[in-house]
Amino acid sequence: MNEREIEILETKENVLADNDKVAAQVRALLKEKKVYLINLMASPGAGKTTTLVRVINALKEKYRIGVMEADVDSVVDAMTVRDAGAQVIQLHTGGACHMDADMTLRGLKKMDLDNLDIVVLENVGNLVCPAEFDVGANKRVMILSVPEGDDKPLKYPLMFTVSDVMLINKIDVKPVFNFDEAACKERVLKLNPSEKIFALSSKTGEGFEAFTDYLDKEVAQA
Amino acid sequence: MNEREIEILETKENVLADNDKVAAQVRALLKEKKVYLINLMASPGAGKTTTLVRVINALKEKYRIGVMEADVDSVVDAMTVRDAGAQVIQLHTGGACHMDADMTLRGLKKMDLDNLDIVVLENVGNLVCPAEFDVGANKRVMILSVPEGDDKPLKYPLMFTVSDVMLINKIDVKPVFNFDEAACKERVLKLNPSEKIFALSSKTGEGFEAFTDYLDKEVAQA
Repeated sequence: MNEREIEILETKENVLADNDKVAAQVRALLKEKKVYLINLMASPGAGKTTTLVRVINALKEKYRIGVMEADVDSVVDAMTVRDAGAQVIQLHTGGACHMDADMTLRGLKKMDLDNLDIVVLENVGNLVCPAEFDVGANKRVMILSVPEGDDKPLKYPLMFTVSDVMLINKIDVKPVFNFDEAACKERVLKLNPSEKIFALSSKTGEGFEAFTDYLDKEVAQA
Repeated sequence: MNEREIEILETKENVLADNDKVAAQVRALLKEKKVYLINLMASPGAGKTTTLVRVINALKEKYRIGVMEADVDSVVDAMTVRDAGAQVIQLHTGGACHMDADMTLRGLKKMDLDNLDIVVLENVGNLVCPAEFDVGANKRVMILSVPEGDDKPLKYPLMFTVSDVMLINKIDVKPVFNFDEAACKERVLKLNPSEKIFALSSKTGEGFEAFTDYLDKEVAQA
């Protein structure tokens, strides 16, 4: 894989833009182009890329999938995801700790939306800041991985409150950590009673089908 | 433990303050009071609090230790740390994703610095934003935990570049994850040749003594 083959867009934050107005523009563009946008958020190392690769493999026969990689730096993930068979662009956020609607809109305009059904935005690895910005996505999916601990909804409540779907990832290593899945779910549902929760392992595939079946239905209904 | 016993300081960010000037004020205050400030940074769930408790237990006979907990929300960590025997205040950052020098200075002024030798700032769980702000600390310590992956220096280079010490935590679960310690160290040292690296487990204590011995020497020499 050659780094130079990955398109890179510099998307430094426009602090003056009214984020919610631009999010509405993103929604209009997605509707016009019949594209379903997923905003995928998590801490570094929670398994965003591995999850994404598995989603692509599960759904790529039925949907044309694009990915916008909003890494702080490097094109490591972009190359991994493209190898899985998705149209990929890399967004360089210039050190920014999150994606906003304007950066998302500029990314979408760089993609061949006429030939895509789903676009996944892999947000910057950060459990705090991305939660604050509506990027205009159809679905906000967050990942909490087992090694991070079941207390994270107490400490970083906003992400759990604003997301539509929560994946509890790395359940294959649950025996190694003192992760109380029931307590974790209870904390999340207290913050956000409509959160859809899936416990799975993006590495082994355990529990993953329930999530991709759900995504399939949501995209088909949109 | 009663939540109301923990002092809480609301430290919303002052965007107008010149961070570096205030960091110099922090340094002057620390020098005057003969207090050694450690800025502890990591992603959520990397083990900041467990590490802190073990540091307190290792050094509390020799040094009087204070902790400023800069959590996004909740006083969970503050109570855990106080139980270990440290003077603790909780800083509520109002959703901010990092501590800056001004927030740190206000926190320090709330503490009984005349009766402290070491203060540890447990920064907001975030591998991105805290790296951008010099808070005036004597030592910047970051934690990367094994489950996060050995590629993180490639993806979030700033934190690895600006820290003085890197702890590779949770080495007790290394057999479960494909974590290449040698490759990780090489990536870090390429970014920051003077980084001191300790591989340890805050849970089991394995490898921890080398780190607390080092800290002891650094504090004694300061």
